[in-house]
Amino acid sequence: MGPFRFLLLFFFLGVVAAESPQTILRTTTQAVAASAFAYDHLYCDSWRLSVETNNARFWRTVPFRCSEFVQEYMSGARYASDTDIVVDESLAFARSVQIANDGNDAWIFDVDETLLSNVPYYAINGFGTKVFNETSFNEWVDKARAPALAASLRLYEELLVSGFQIILLTGRNEAQRKVTVENLLHAGYHSWRSLIFREDSDMGKPAVVFKSGRRAELEGQGFRILASSGDQWSDLLGFPMAQRSFKHPNPMYYIG
Amino acid sequence: MGPFRFLLLFFFLGVVAAESPQTILRTTTQAVAASAFAYDHLYCDSWRLSVETNNARFWRTVPFRCSEFVQEYMSGARYASDTDIVVDESLAFARSVQIANDGNDAWIFDVDETLLSNVPYYAINGFGTKVFNETSFNEWVDKARAPALAASLRLYEELLVSGFQIILLTGRNEAQRKVTVENLLHAGYHSWRSLIFREDSDMGKPAVVFKSGRRAELEGQGFRILASSGDQWSDLLGFPMAQRSFKHPNPMYYIG
Repeated sequence: MGPFRFLLLFFFLGVVAAESPQTILRTTTQAVAASAFAYDHLYCDSWRLSVETNNARFWRTVPFRCSEFVQEYMSGARYASDTDIVVDESLAFARSVQIANDGNDAWIFDVDETLLSNVPYYAINGFGTKVFNETSFNEWVDKARAPALAASLRLYEELLVSGFQIILLTGRNEAQRKVTVENLLHAGYHSWRSLIFREDSDMGKPAVVFKSGRRAELEGQGFRILASSGDQWSDLLGFPMAQRSFKHPNPMYYIG
Repeated sequence: MGPFRFLLLFFFLGVVAAESPQTILRTTTQAVAASAFAYDHLYCDSWRLSVETNNARFWRTVPFRCSEFVQEYMSGARYASDTDIVVDESLAFARSVQIANDGNDAWIFDVDETLLSNVPYYAINGFGTKVFNETSFNEWVDKARAPALAASLRLYEELLVSGFQIILLTGRNEAQRKVTVENLLHAGYHSWRSLIFREDSDMGKPAVVFKSGRRAELEGQGFRILASSGDQWSDLLGFPMAQRSFKHPNPMYYIG
């Protein structure tokens, strides 16, 4: 349904309800509000697409006019649906692959907004409309209570059973290893082959350099990187790339 | 606006209109129809995202349940809005670039669904729900009457004025050069530096191999490929990549 059809419906409601000049005034105001809403919705949906396709880069915060849109997207059925479809596509690929028995068929996962959801944190911190606050975010990470993204847990479990080696490659720091392991286990993840953090020597590297560098090392160790899953294009791009890359949705923040 | 809010509105309309058991029955049917519509809309919006992010690959036709969705998307305000935002992001990048005066700063464009719109053809051929028919599509191409995508023409004109060398790289065949030039000129495009088609020796190559191979040749000729614009990921991926890639929307067909 296009927003304009919604607008027509809204007008129809207004006309049906119109019984006095006052009512007409009120419904006109409602229609104007609906029109602005529809216009912003159209813009924000296009903005979100530009984020998800990597056309928009280096953005610091969600545009102010899209704050309600992103909140509704993240809290409603759309984020869950979008994540479900990513996982369905991932599983379709996984099932098409012949796994060797040498323990070298790897699937790489990012952690934040890919396996774990920080929505409980962002829900009380503006859903991406505020500039990233490292101090308060690290306090949230230290609690180790980020829930699993349900669809990702479904994917993870099937990959494990299928014999994929699961490698977690996160932009979190080595100093956060203990709480991260605790959080992953608490959320239901287990049996990963390795969990790779940023070391001191990686500080200051763009994420895409850090992550593609680690993929090169993994290939050097004999792994065949069949797939990567991440909510940022910097999880996926750079040389070497996985055979297939799966972009999970995230309109709340950008990491270059 | 989430589809469920639309559903609530629909119920409200039903309740207001309910005056007899027959009316109630009819409005219940409407509500069920609205529910199926909302469910399909949610699914199809997620499917479209998976297409635009390159998570879904090698699909042959638009899913049957999404035929109305794609028709509405392509015909309504959303396709135009999405294309507008891609162009806004492209121009923001173009304006940030310092152009050298050596005539080597290149911007590569794909043609179909990037500069020219084949919507008039697809509108009478199922909007991607039918398997691609090369014969009828080539008849359409021979007419040389595909209109410009308005936003792309706006981008193209500003790039020319800014001193970019514009290179058109299309999957069309060399045999279609004459009608393609005629169509591009008719649609308002002009002054490209070169227009590259598939030669006989490129037949059978996947698009991504053909196009990245041509980019390598262009770099060999001294071009700096600052950006690529295309509606297919096979226009953009592969080595070498442009400094920035801009994915234009296209939920109607897939080229690998």
